[in-house]
Amino acid sequence: MGLRVPARPGATLLELAGQAGLGLEAGCGGKGLCGKCRVRLTGEFPPLDEAQARLLGQEARQGLRLACQTEMPRGGVVWVPQESLQKRQVILTAGTDTDLELDPAVRRLELRVPPASLREPRAAAQRLAEELRTPALDVPLEVLRALPQALGAPEGLVTATLWQGRRVLEVSAGRAPASLGLAVDLGTTTVVAYLLDLADGRPLAVEAAMNPQVMRGDDVISRISHACQDPAHLAELAGLAVACLNQLSRQACHSAGVAPRRILECVVVGNTAMHHLFLGLDPSGLAAAPYAPVLGASLDLPAARLGLELAPLANLHLPPVKAGFVGSDAVAAALAAGADQVETSTLILDLGTNGEMILATPQALLCCSTAAGPAFEGGHIKFGMRGAPGAVERLALDPDTLEPSLGVIGGGAPLGLCGSGLVSAVAELWRAGALGETGGWNPALEHPRLRQGDQGREFVLAWAAQTANGQDLALTAQDLAQVQLAKGAIQAGARIMLERLGLAAPEQVLLAGAFGNYLDPADALDIGLLPPVARQRVRGIGNAAGAGALMILASQRQRQRAQDLAQRLEYLELAALPGFLDRFLEGMAFLPAPGRRED
Amino acid sequence: MGLRVPARPGATLLELAGQAGLGLEAGCGGKGLCGKCRVRLTGEFPPLDEAQARLLGQEARQGLRLACQTEMPRGGVVWVPQESLQKRQVILTAGTDTDLELDPAVRRLELRVPPASLREPRAAAQRLAEELRTPALDVPLEVLRALPQALGAPEGLVTATLWQGRRVLEVSAGRAPASLGLAVDLGTTTVVAYLLDLADGRPLAVEAAMNPQVMRGDDVISRISHACQDPAHLAELAGLAVACLNQLSRQACHSAGVAPRRILECVVVGNTAMHHLFLGLDPSGLAAAPYAPVLGASLDLPAARLGLELAPLANLHLPPVKAGFVGSDAVAAALAAGADQVETSTLILDLGTNGEMILATPQALLCCSTAAGPAFEGGHIKFGMRGAPGAVERLALDPDTLEPSLGVIGGGAPLGLCGSGLVSAVAELWRAGALGETGGWNPALEHPRLRQGDQGREFVLAWAAQTANGQDLALTAQDLAQVQLAKGAIQAGARIMLERLGLAAPEQVLLAGAFGNYLDPADALDIGLLPPVARQRVRGIGNAAGAGALMILASQRQRQRAQDLAQRLEYLELAALPGFLDRFLEGMAFLPAPGRRED
Repeated sequence: MGLRVPARPGATLLELAGQAGLGLEAGCGGKGLCGKCRVRLTGEFPPLDEAQARLLGQEARQGLRLACQTEMPRGGVVWVPQESLQKRQVILTAGTDTDLELDPAVRRLELRVPPASLREPRAAAQRLAEELRTPALDVPLEVLRALPQALGAPEGLVTATLWQGRRVLEVSAGRAPASLGLAVDLGTTTVVAYLLDLADGRPLAVEAAMNPQVMRGDDVISRISHACQDPAHLAELAGLAVACLNQLSRQACHSAGVAPRRILECVVVGNTAMHHLFLGLDPSGLAAAPYAPVLGASLDLPAARLGLELAPLANLHLPPVKAGFVGSDAVAAALAAGADQVETSTLILDLGTNGEMILATPQALLCCSTAAGPAFEGGHIKFGMRGAPGAVERLALDPDTLEPSLGVIGGGAPLGLCGSGLVSAVAELWRAGALGETGGWNPALEHPRLRQGDQGREFVLAWAAQTANGQDLALTAQDLAQVQLAKGAIQAGARIMLERLGLAAPEQVLLAGAFGNYLDPADALDIGLLPPVARQRVRGIGNAAGAGALMILASQRQRQRAQDLAQRLEYLELAALPGFLDRFLEGMAFLPAPGRRED
Repeated sequence: MGLRVPARPGATLLELAGQAGLGLEAGCGGKGLCGKCRVRLTGEFPPLDEAQARLLGQEARQGLRLACQTEMPRGGVVWVPQESLQKRQVILTAGTDTDLELDPAVRRLELRVPPASLREPRAAAQRLAEELRTPALDVPLEVLRALPQALGAPEGLVTATLWQGRRVLEVSAGRAPASLGLAVDLGTTTVVAYLLDLADGRPLAVEAAMNPQVMRGDDVISRISHACQDPAHLAELAGLAVACLNQLSRQACHSAGVAPRRILECVVVGNTAMHHLFLGLDPSGLAAAPYAPVLGASLDLPAARLGLELAPLANLHLPPVKAGFVGSDAVAAALAAGADQVETSTLILDLGTNGEMILATPQALLCCSTAAGPAFEGGHIKFGMRGAPGAVERLALDPDTLEPSLGVIGGGAPLGLCGSGLVSAVAELWRAGALGETGGWNPALEHPRLRQGDQGREFVLAWAAQTANGQDLALTAQDLAQVQLAKGAIQAGARIMLERLGLAAPEQVLLAGAFGNYLDPADALDIGLLPPVARQRVRGIGNAAGAGALMILASQRQRQRAQDLAQRLEYLELAALPGFLDRFLEGMAFLPAPGRRED
């Protein structure tokens, strides 16, 4: 790639690559466990420890090493294989296409402020407050400093920008350009930012990026554990998220042809771990029972306080989080899905690592989260990967020969399996009778593609000659177990919520997020990932968290509705409930979930 | 003095002296007008401009120069005469001895916060809010970051420090030391800081210092004009005030044996110019009619926002200012004097450069300010000086011989005249018949001490042999004119307020500030500086502004009372009133003010 980086003593190749702007896969957060950040060295090979030798096998002798465990060799060159690079992911930026209600917290007012007179030498701030008919107007120091110049022209036009009708965020002489807002869905893996014109509700740009915190771990648990080691780690993770938001806001403003300092409010939603890491709040409570967050309520603070480079007095609004594993993204998704206004029982699922679920009926609003694990995001799956070019997203088996046909994102040679491809593969193998009911392979099955691998029996979905990396692409017995764990957790969570309301099944299922959007409902129903509903009552609702964040940005009424919704939500801590383990174990079977299903 | 400073090209000797920690007198703010920053050069003398030549006379040829107009000569040494050094002033720190009402905005609470449970995994901030029975508790980000550790010990004692019962300023595990408060009287010339224990109202320390802004001008007008030249000047003046407060708080804490980060609230009062310069608010409006301030209302902001080094979340409270020349010091003085609760008509005078006056009756509350000029602070008086050692503070003339006896601060040889000495000299000369009624010297007077000087006729109060600087100490005709201007303005202001309420005289006069405290009431009454009241009804009330700041710091009720008082105060802009000029001209006469006087 021709990149040159000055090598600091003590810095790992993973860190140096990050400095060079080169994202390497590091599922374990740089602990030497996942084996994904492999690089090839030339020159003098550094010594090899036992853990690396086990993970890397034969090739270690030819200079293969884990970037996270290796310092820069003297005078050498480091080759980065394609598989070790972070994939540019297919990021779902679209939310549900609802018209945005427009009633923003930030409003621009044009007014004329009379000059002071010798008979009434009223202070500038007082004349402004009187003209705005707001006696208790909050005029921050920065605005007071700008006030004389803004009010300078006698009887001239003045533009004041107010937040919630009571705090002045900006004041200037003459007309000012429209105020903008930024809504951000701060995901564990991806970050999506929406730029909105707050005067007319017009969307101006959408930008997305990988969450740069992935260099400290793929999943929330590894990032939490990293943050808990050292206050400097927590500060670093917070800084990475802030830098990412700044980059996205610059990009969005660049493509819309506006300046970031026109952004006067920013709404950020995310799971509770992202929320805490962004704010620099100690996340250790989220890692152990009872999983209590530091802050549940919504928070408003100056965006500049965190280092966001927006308007100097821009407000940062963080909607409420409900629990350690039900974040403001779930609250925002529930808002976008209208969970507080459903007419029939509705199960809203976000099948990420922490399967957040909401069960809404006209009377009740329950939520829970299940440790579904990262299987559907490519984690802990031998050839798992995110939904990026090269990922198998769909698979069909010839019912007689079991020969697979693969649908690959981007259309090229396959490299791995993303979440929907994984579910599709498992469902096809189940329908073909290749799986045992209680898990694992059907012991009776014999097939040329089913062979003994280093992790037990595995089914080869594509031979080395067809794949992008020249390796056989296989689904292993361990991969099947990961899917079972994930669906067991999800099924148990859904059943416990349904039983709590005396229901056998919900009348509809809404799937939030990218995985939910690309998932084939039939596959999900067949293997029991979803409770028994009619296939046509399963619907993807896109990036509902992002859509909810936009609603909260655009409207104070929706912002209040999100607060009320979070208040009304009843959180079930599954681990504290009797019966969870039974349902979890039942849910692991490769069978449709129990109950009636109309198709 | 042996000081060495690196000389920067372009820097004046005045600036270099400031860098070396050496304060030179610079009444005009370094404009080359007042001639007080004289220094003596050796080596190569720099060229002499006409203005300096006029001010310095003969001695310029021997190397006398103005430090503010001169750069460092190459390889030379600069001698600083004693008179050019800023005097350590006698600063009045005591206020009226009223017991402080204790009801502070900052309160420390000890409580036990129950841990989160698996059944109710409530957020840490929510558990704290519930324990404090304050649902809308404002928990700033810094406190949220410290919360997990503070609540760490299950059922352990937690100390929370609250501001106005709704914002958490600090939280920590276990017991915490008492919260402290700092009340500051930010004067044009001197700054006084009082350290208070907010738990029991005990005063811990008082510290005073010269306002370091004097290097940019003695009076508010020269500082305002300096600030208006360049935004960097305004920032510099603000920074000087902040640095002074930080130094005073460190000193006060050092002498009390406490840490500045225990200070959780700071109240600062000052005249409107000091208020604006401290906050970095554009003071240009104060320099021209209609003299409207930027901000009149009280202001609360984080002390750290201005760079005050107190507790990280300490609150800074600035009480309201009433008008461009009636500041929060006048409001605080009125509070301390009980202007809102008087039973008889009371005139409260602060005879500084901007003679602020309040006329209080049980029904009305008027205020005004008069441009009395700096005469009573030593400004514009040939041998004027502040109330520092060497200043004549009292003078008696032998009625027959007119031989003066001098009372000198510190008891040594006289150097100049401070405000009370000036009034004493004028009153004695008036009583001896040495003055003409309409001003100037009695044309009939012949006396060996009355001679022709370079500024007209002057009366020698002390011959060179007796003085500290070897010069004749004289009172000039121009000095008399300055006193006339000051008392004309003060008498006119007082009369206009009295007439507005249909009164000929107030029933009592309260004199705030150092000058008022040291002034002999008989002198002031005789020359018509005060309206006609009985001599025993004139009383000094000490540093009433500082006393009021302490009351506002110690009690929320007093803070509210100060707001109400500022609201109730009716401000009279004298320049806008008919009749002001007539009364001003009348007031210039050396006569007791018109009206009946009982003695």
